[in-house]
Amino acid sequence: MQRYFAQNWHLNEPFLLSEEESRHCISVMRNAIGNHLTVLDGAGNLILAKIMDPHPKRTSLQYLETIRTNPAKHNLHIAISPTKSNDRIEWFLEKVCEIGVGKITPILFERTERSKINLDRWNKIIVASCKQSSLLHFPILAEPKKFQEFLSEINSNQKLIVCAIGAPSRLSKIDTTKENILVIGPEGDFTAEELNQIKSKNAEEISISENILRVETAGIVGATLWNSLME
Amino acid sequence: MQRYFAQNWHLNEPFLLSEEESRHCISVMRNAIGNHLTVLDGAGNLILAKIMDPHPKRTSLQYLETIRTNPAKHNLHIAISPTKSNDRIEWFLEKVCEIGVGKITPILFERTERSKINLDRWNKIIVASCKQSSLLHFPILAEPKKFQEFLSEINSNQKLIVCAIGAPSRLSKIDTTKENILVIGPEGDFTAEELNQIKSKNAEEISISENILRVETAGIVGATLWNSLME
Repeated sequence: MQRYFAQNWHLNEPFLLSEEESRHCISVMRNAIGNHLTVLDGAGNLILAKIMDPHPKRTSLQYLETIRTNPAKHNLHIAISPTKSNDRIEWFLEKVCEIGVGKITPILFERTERSKINLDRWNKIIVASCKQSSLLHFPILAEPKKFQEFLSEINSNQKLIVCAIGAPSRLSKIDTTKENILVIGPEGDFTAEELNQIKSKNAEEISISENILRVETAGIVGATLWNSLME
Repeated sequence: MQRYFAQNWHLNEPFLLSEEESRHCISVMRNAIGNHLTVLDGAGNLILAKIMDPHPKRTSLQYLETIRTNPAKHNLHIAISPTKSNDRIEWFLEKVCEIGVGKITPILFERTERSKINLDRWNKIIVASCKQSSLLHFPILAEPKKFQEFLSEINSNQKLIVCAIGAPSRLSKIDTTKENILVIGPEGDFTAEELNQIKSKNAEEISISENILRVETAGIVGATLWNSLME
């Protein structure tokens, strides 16, 4: 059955699809009044709904039943430098959704080669990937932050993990009492000062590969290894 | 120092760069006679060489010394269906080179949606990715095979691993006495008959993720998990 994304549903009440989801539902998929479809809200619920008004911009749905509700998982938070190439970071977004990630924060480091981020586009990629994989929980995409601001806000309920070339240990155990944040620097690497500041927050330094990985690959490999330890 | 790819070097003898590598070396990077550069041969050697003739199509180099020689590693062989979209399988190629893989064989399954494969282009992507990551061993790209042919050639020195949705176990241990071949099916999955035939070869069935992964993602996640167990 076709899957749509909507966050504004209420038990036993009518609700609207967004303009984009409405267009896809009515103009592309040619749905008509009375058709049943499933809705993911990205917050753990899969809902069965019925089309009340097949409006191509504001499709109205009636809630029928909740098919499944999954509890939130303890997922990884990835704080990552945007890549110089848009393609590369967008590919990262699609892949970590499939693999599983809880939150993504774009961090602007001193050597980050991109300052403009199209969060709307990033969010669309996340929603498309999560719908494709039928995920019940979608990752949160946070506003971009400058590295210093990000670091100043780290608190004792959070644990930083940093991939450092030549670090002696692999990721081997996860502290599930904390929010785990994997920090991935830009193409030109962290500055020595940035790395020292990260370490000063009791960050765990790990190696995730014998080889030198690109930024987006480090994010994907990090998420894969983290999930393999959590399951 | 700039890195080039050449397989035809001999100890203490002159050798030629390919037309493409010559063009990059001379026309793009503007190298001149006498310049030193490093050469990867993809078979474990990193060589220091000197430009004898800066010809833009047939650059001649003099071998100076072998900087490093790494023994071949016991690496994963991935037998994978080409994806419908070229982009997706090409991302897979770039990423598994970075992560580490020994051999890639394109397999044409019943539901594979692409029959034409541009092996030259695939090889160029592999060489570019390996050069970028300064890998000493490049993966071997095998000729595409039909599934039945591939399966009929499996012998007792090889072990098949297959990702099956809902398989109970994760990849947890590697049999290093055999060539491990991870088999990844097409977008529409294996046919029941194909899966039965794979299982009949004593394949190990594993799950690599809780989520449904795209073809190229399954390859990348599989290579990541395999390497994390090997290191």
